[in-house]
Amino acid sequence: MIIQLKKNITTEQKLSVIQAIEKVNYQVNEVKTQYGHYLIAVGKKEFDIRKIGHLKGIDDIHRVTDSYKLVSKKWRVHDTDVDLGDGIHVNRQQFSIMAGPCSIESPEQIDQTIEHLKTHNIRMMRGGVFKPRTSPYAFRGVGLEGLKIFSEKCRAAGIKVVTEVMQVSQVAEMHDYVDIFQVGTRNAQNFNLLDELGKTNKAVMLKRGFSGTIEELLQAAEYVFSNGNEKIILCERGIRTYETAYRNTLDLNAVPILKEKSHLPVIVDPSHGVGLRNYIEPMALAATMAGADGVIVEVHQCPEKALSDGQQTLNYPEAKQLYERLHATYALRKSFNG
Amino acid sequence: MIIQLKKNITTEQKLSVIQAIEKVNYQVNEVKTQYGHYLIAVGKKEFDIRKIGHLKGIDDIHRVTDSYKLVSKKWRVHDTDVDLGDGIHVNRQQFSIMAGPCSIESPEQIDQTIEHLKTHNIRMMRGGVFKPRTSPYAFRGVGLEGLKIFSEKCRAAGIKVVTEVMQVSQVAEMHDYVDIFQVGTRNAQNFNLLDELGKTNKAVMLKRGFSGTIEELLQAAEYVFSNGNEKIILCERGIRTYETAYRNTLDLNAVPILKEKSHLPVIVDPSHGVGLRNYIEPMALAATMAGADGVIVEVHQCPEKALSDGQQTLNYPEAKQLYERLHATYALRKSFNG
Amino acid sequence: MIIQLKKNITTEQKLSVIQAIEKVNYQVNEVKTQYGHYLIAVGKKEFDIRKIGHLKGIDDIHRVTDSYKLVSKKWRVHDTDVDLGDGIHVNRQQFSIMAGPCSIESPEQIDQTIEHLKTHNIRMMRGGVFKPRTSPYAFRGVGLEGLKIFSEKCRAAGIKVVTEVMQVSQVAEMHDYVDIFQVGTRNAQNFNLLDELGKTNKAVMLKRGFSGTIEELLQAAEYVFSNGNEKIILCERGIRTYETAYRNTLDLNAVPILKEKSHLPVIVDPSHGVGLRNYIEPMALAATMAGADGVIVEVHQCPEKALSDGQQTLNYPEAKQLYERLHATYALRKSFNG
Amino acid sequence: MIIQLKKNITTEQKLSVIQAIEKVNYQVNEVKTQYGHYLIAVGKKEFDIRKIGHLKGIDDIHRVTDSYKLVSKKWRVHDTDVDLGDGIHVNRQQFSIMAGPCSIESPEQIDQTIEHLKTHNIRMMRGGVFKPRTSPYAFRGVGLEGLKIFSEKCRAAGIKVVTEVMQVSQVAEMHDYVDIFQVGTRNAQNFNLLDELGKTNKAVMLKRGFSGTIEELLQAAEYVFSNGNEKIILCERGIRTYETAYRNTLDLNAVPILKEKSHLPVIVDPSHGVGLRNYIEPMALAATMAGADGVIVEVHQCPEKALSDGQQTLNYPEAKQLYERLHATYALRKSFNG
Repeated sequence: MIIQLKKNITTEQKLSVIQAIEKVNYQVNEVKTQYGHYLIAVGKKEFDIRKIGHLKGIDDIHRVTDSYKLVSKKWRVHDTDVDLGDGIHVNRQQFSIMAGPCSIESPEQIDQTIEHLKTHNIRMMRGGVFKPRTSPYAFRGVGLEGLKIFSEKCRAAGIKVVTEVMQVSQVAEMHDYVDIFQVGTRNAQNFNLLDELGKTNKAVMLKRGFSGTIEELLQAAEYVFSNGNEKIILCERGIRTYETAYRNTLDLNAVPILKEKSHLPVIVDPSHGVGLRNYIEPMALAATMAGADGVIVEVHQCPEKALSDGQQTLNYPEAKQLYERLHATYALRKSFNG
Repeated sequence: MIIQLKKNITTEQKLSVIQAIEKVNYQVNEVKTQYGHYLIAVGKKEFDIRKIGHLKGIDDIHRVTDSYKLVSKKWRVHDTDVDLGDGIHVNRQQFSIMAGPCSIESPEQIDQTIEHLKTHNIRMMRGGVFKPRTSPYAFRGVGLEGLKIFSEKCRAAGIKVVTEVMQVSQVAEMHDYVDIFQVGTRNAQNFNLLDELGKTNKAVMLKRGFSGTIEELLQAAEYVFSNGNEKIILCERGIRTYETAYRNTLDLNAVPILKEKSHLPVIVDPSHGVGLRNYIEPMALAATMAGADGVIVEVHQCPEKALSDGQQTLNYPEAKQLYERLHATYALRKSFNG
Repeated sequence: MIIQLKKNITTEQKLSVIQAIEKVNYQVNEVKTQYGHYLIAVGKKEFDIRKIGHLKGIDDIHRVTDSYKLVSKKWRVHDTDVDLGDGIHVNRQQFSIMAGPCSIESPEQIDQTIEHLKTHNIRMMRGGVFKPRTSPYAFRGVGLEGLKIFSEKCRAAGIKVVTEVMQVSQVAEMHDYVDIFQVGTRNAQNFNLLDELGKTNKAVMLKRGFSGTIEELLQAAEYVFSNGNEKIILCERGIRTYETAYRNTLDLNAVPILKEKSHLPVIVDPSHGVGLRNYIEPMALAATMAGADGVIVEVHQCPEKALSDGQQTLNYPEAKQLYERLHATYALRKSFNG
Repeated sequence: MIIQLKKNITTEQKLSVIQAIEKVNYQVNEVKTQYGHYLIAVGKKEFDIRKIGHLKGIDDIHRVTDSYKLVSKKWRVHDTDVDLGDGIHVNRQQFSIMAGPCSIESPEQIDQTIEHLKTHNIRMMRGGVFKPRTSPYAFRGVGLEGLKIFSEKCRAAGIKVVTEVMQVSQVAEMHDYVDIFQVGTRNAQNFNLLDELGKTNKAVMLKRGFSGTIEELLQAAEYVFSNGNEKIILCERGIRTYETAYRNTLDLNAVPILKEKSHLPVIVDPSHGVGLRNYIEPMALAATMAGADGVIVEVHQCPEKALSDGQQTLNYPEAKQLYERLHATYALRKSFNG
C-alpha cells in the first residue's frame, strides 16, 4: 500500500498515520524523493483503507498488490519523465537514442563520437570508463580521469553522459561527471549500489540481469525509488539461454510487459542483446515496434579496432542508416497509438 | 558438398560421379525433389572440387560447411518460393498472414472464421484437428472427420488449410485435406515424421522446438528437403527459459539469423510465443520489423469460449487492427530494403 | 479422482457409477490395465466422494489433485514393480543396472557386450537399433534386422533387451524382440507413441525431455498408464541449460522429487547426462545416493571406435569399477533407509 | 603463462624478466600472495618458454591455456589447503561441514546453534548478518553489531565464522570478525568486491552465480587470487533453469569438473540448491559421492520460525541424521579413491 503524503504534512500528523498503520501489524517504510513523500506499508492481512483515509496529511492511498510498489503502474497514472536538463528527457513521449563506443579509449575517439552524434542530433553519449571484465587481466577502462575528459567534452557539446558505475564508492567520485548512471547486468542485484544510487538526484539506468526476471528488474528499480530517486530508466539487454547462435537472447517480450506493469521508460540495448553486428538493426527496429522508448547502441569510428565488443559495434554509416530507420519506425508506431 | 545434377543425367554418369566421390571416402546421399536432383557428399577431409567438376551430368557444385546443406543459403542464390496454388505463395517477396482458432470446434466456427478471413483478404486458415495435449484427459481435437469439413469449407472459399500433423500414419490420411502440414514444437525432432513429410509434395511448416536451437530447426528442415520436398516454411514460436512472466520467450533474434543462414521463408507465431493477448500485437509488429515473412495468429469469434488457448487468442476487432498495422509495418520495412 | 473398480463389476454397475459422476459435470475416462480397472474423473468443482462411495462395484476412491493421476503416489501405497520375467525386475527394492553400447553395430559387438555383462551379473542390455540423429546424413542404426539378432543373442544369454522405439509403426514390428521399450528425449511428448506403448504389455522406459519438466515426465507416464500399461520406468537423463562445460545438466534434483511424487521406479542415465567419460562414475554414484533405483550406462569394448557417443562411453575396466562402486554405494544407502 | 618467481628475486632480476616478456608483446601482471610471487603473462602468440627460462630469479614456468590461470590445476600439482587456524582446514583431504541458520537472529539463537554444532563436532558456523533481499522492504539482517556478537560467541567456542559480505566497504568493517568471507550468488561477478577480498588474508568462499558458468566461477576465483589471496573455496549452490518443481537446479555436474580443472576445494550448498527440506539430505549425500569436499547447510532450532528460508532449513534431529550419513558416505568415497 502506498500512502502519498501532502507536502505540508506535519511531523505529528505523519506519526499519527504511521501509528495507525503499525497498529494493524503493517511494516511502514518512509520514502522521500525529489518529487514526493510516501509511506509504503507492507503486511499480510487485508487492510481496510478507510481506517486511515480520514487522517490529516494524506493526499491519496493506493493498494498495490505487486511485489514492487512505487515503480508499479497500479498507482501512478502519468508515466515518469526522466529530465536530464537542457531540454533532454527520457520518457514515453519521445524516442531516445543513446550511442557511443563500448569503452572510452582516447580524447580523439570522444571528439569523433561527439561529432558523429551531433550530425545526427543525438544528445546522449554512452561510453564505459569502468569496465566489468570476466578476466582480471583484460582492459578494465580508462577510469575516473578518462571520465573527466569524457564529461568535459560532452558538456561543451550539449551532450549527456551515460556510463556504468560498478561500486558504491564510485557513486560520489563519478557524480559530477555523469548524467545517467548505468547499472550493468552483473550488478543488477547489487543492492548496496542500488541503495546508494537512490540517494542521488541523477538518472539511473538499470540493465536487466543476464538471468534476471522482469519482476527482479522492477524490484531493483524499487530499491532506487525507495531510497529517494525517481529518475529511473529500465533497460532490456538480453538474457542467458541455451541458444549459442548469438550472444544473448534479446528478450523483446519484456518490453510491452514492462510498459504495462510500470510507469518508467524502457530502453533496449540490441548491441549486447543479439551481439552480432548484422542483426543490430533488425533487432533495434523490432524493439521500437515492440514499444521501446529508446535504444542504446554501440558505435565506433572503426569497430575493428575497438578495445572491446567490436563484433557488435556499428560503424558510422551503419549507425546513420539505423538512426533514420528508427525515426521512421517510431513515427509509424506513434501513428498507431495516436 | 552439394552436387546439382543435370536433369538429363544418365544413370551411368551418375554412378561415375558417386564412385569418384566415394573414392575419397565421402559418403554420398542422393536427393530428388520436386524441383531438382542432387548428391550430398559428407566427409571429413578437404575435398578438391576440381576432381569431379569435369564429370558429365553435373550442373554445379557448392561447398557448404554448415551442418545442414540443402537448406543453407550458401549454395542457393534465390530464396525459396512455397507455392500453394491459386496464386497463394509463402516467400520473401510478400507478407503472409495465417489466422484462425487454436482448435477447430464446429462447422459454424469454421464458417465464421472464413468470413472473417475473407473480409481481410487473408487466404490461409490455421486450425488444429489433432491437438497435442500435456494431459491425456484433455480435449484432443475433432480429428480426421473434422478436418474434412474444415478442408471442404476452405476450398469453397479459396482459402488454404494449415493444420498440425502429429504422426507418420496421419500424413497419408490427412494429405488430401491439407495445404500446409504444420509440425508442432513437440515433434520438432520427430525424425520419422520429418522423413515422411519429405516424401509428399505438400508445404511443411516446421515449428522450432520449445528448447530447440536455430541450428536444430535448420537440420529438421534438412530432413524434409533431403527426402524430396523443398516446400518448407520455418516458424519461430518461442523458447523455454527461466522467465515466467509470459508463456514462452518469443525469440525474435532467430528471425534475422534464419533469414541469413537459409533461403526458406520465416514465419513468426506470437500467439504461442508471448502467449498473452495484450502482447500479441506488439510482438507481431516487432517480428515484422525483425524481418519475418509472415505471422500465424490465433483468432476466435469469442476467445473466452475457445476450447483451447483462449488467453492468447485475439477477437475479431483486435485481429482487424493487427492486420492493418502488420501491412503498414511491412510496407515500411519494404521501403527500407528497396 | 481415481475410482478403483472391483474385478467383477458388472457393466450395469459401471454405467451407474459413470452416470453419477457425469451428473456433476465431471469427465470420465475408463482405464483398464494388466493389473486394474479404473475410472478417472476430471472436473473443476469440489466433489463430495460420499455421493458415489456407496455405489456397487467400487473398490476404493482417491482424490488426486496433481495434474497426473494414475502415476501419482497420492493414491497408490505400494511402489510399482516392473516385472520383466525370468526373475528380473525394475523396482524400488533393488538397484538395476542397464549397460551396453550406444548403437548396436555388429553381432561380434553384441557377443562381447553380453560376455561383459554376464561377467558382472548384469541382466539388462541397452543398445540402439533406430538412432535419432540431428543430421539426416548420420548413421541411423542397424534397424529391425539388427534388433532380431540383438534379441536372439540376449535371450540365449538370459539378458533383457532395452532399446529405443521412435514411431508408432515400430511398436508392433519391434514388439517381440524388446523387453523394455525406451522412449527417447526427443519423443518425450510424442503423445501418439505414448498412447501406442500404453496398449502393449511390455515395459516402457520414459526419458525426460531435454527441456522437459518433472511434471511433464509424469504426464507422459500418465499417457502410457491410462492407455492400459502400468509397466513404466522413469529416466532422468539431463536437461538443456546455458552451461556448456558438459553435454547436458544431469538433474539429480529430479530423483528424490520423482520418488516422492510417483510410485514408479526412477533410473538415471549419467552417460547422456554429463556426457563426458571422466565424470560418468561420480555422477552415477551421486545418482545412487540421491535415490535412483538404477542407472543406464554406455559401455563399449573400444569406445574410441564406437559409431556414436564414444566420448561418453566407458570401456570394460572403467565399467567394472563403476559396477562395484555402485553396489557398495547402494548398500550404504540401503543401510540408511532400513 | 605463469612464471613462479624465487622468494629472493631482486628487483633488477624481476624487471629483466618482465622486459623479456613484454618484448614479445605479452602483457604482464605481477601477483604477490601470502604464499607466492608470480608473473602472469597473457598474449596471443605462441611463446617459446626457453626464451626466458634461463633468466635469474625464476623458479618455474607453466603454460596454462585456460582463460583462468592461477586457479587452474594445470600448473599446481598439490591441491590448495585453506587453513583457518586452530587446526581447522578446508581442503581435499577431509570433509568440511558448515552449518547454521540462514540469518543471525538473536544471541540466544547463536548459543543454541553453537551448542548444536559442538555436539556434532562441527567447527564452522554459517549465518548471514547482511542479507541480500529482492525486495527493499524485507528483513536485511542484524548488521555489523550482530556480527560482533556472532563472532565473539563463536571464538569462545572454537568455531569459525562464515558470513556473507556484500560490498567493498564491508570488507574492512567485517574483517576482524569473520573467518570465511562468503560472496553470494548475486555478487558472483562483483569484480570490485572480488578485488578487495583478494587484498585480505582471510578465506573467501565464492558461490557460483545463479546463472554463472563453471568457467565464470573460476575466473571470479582468479580475481581473488591475482589480487594476492590464495585462500579460496568454490561453492556450487544451484543454477536458474526453466524447472519450477524446486528452487534452483543444484548442478552436481559442476563438482567433478571443478575438481578436475582447479586445485581449490569445492563445497556444495544443497539448502539453496534444491531449496526444499525433504530433498536436502539426498542431495547432500549425492554431492558427497560426486566429489564435494564439504557442504554448507541451513539448520535452525525451529525452522518454522526462521526469519528467512525456513522452507529449506533442517531442524536439529534432521541435521544430526544428515551429519552421520555424510560421514559414512564420505568414508565410502575415500575407500574408493584410496
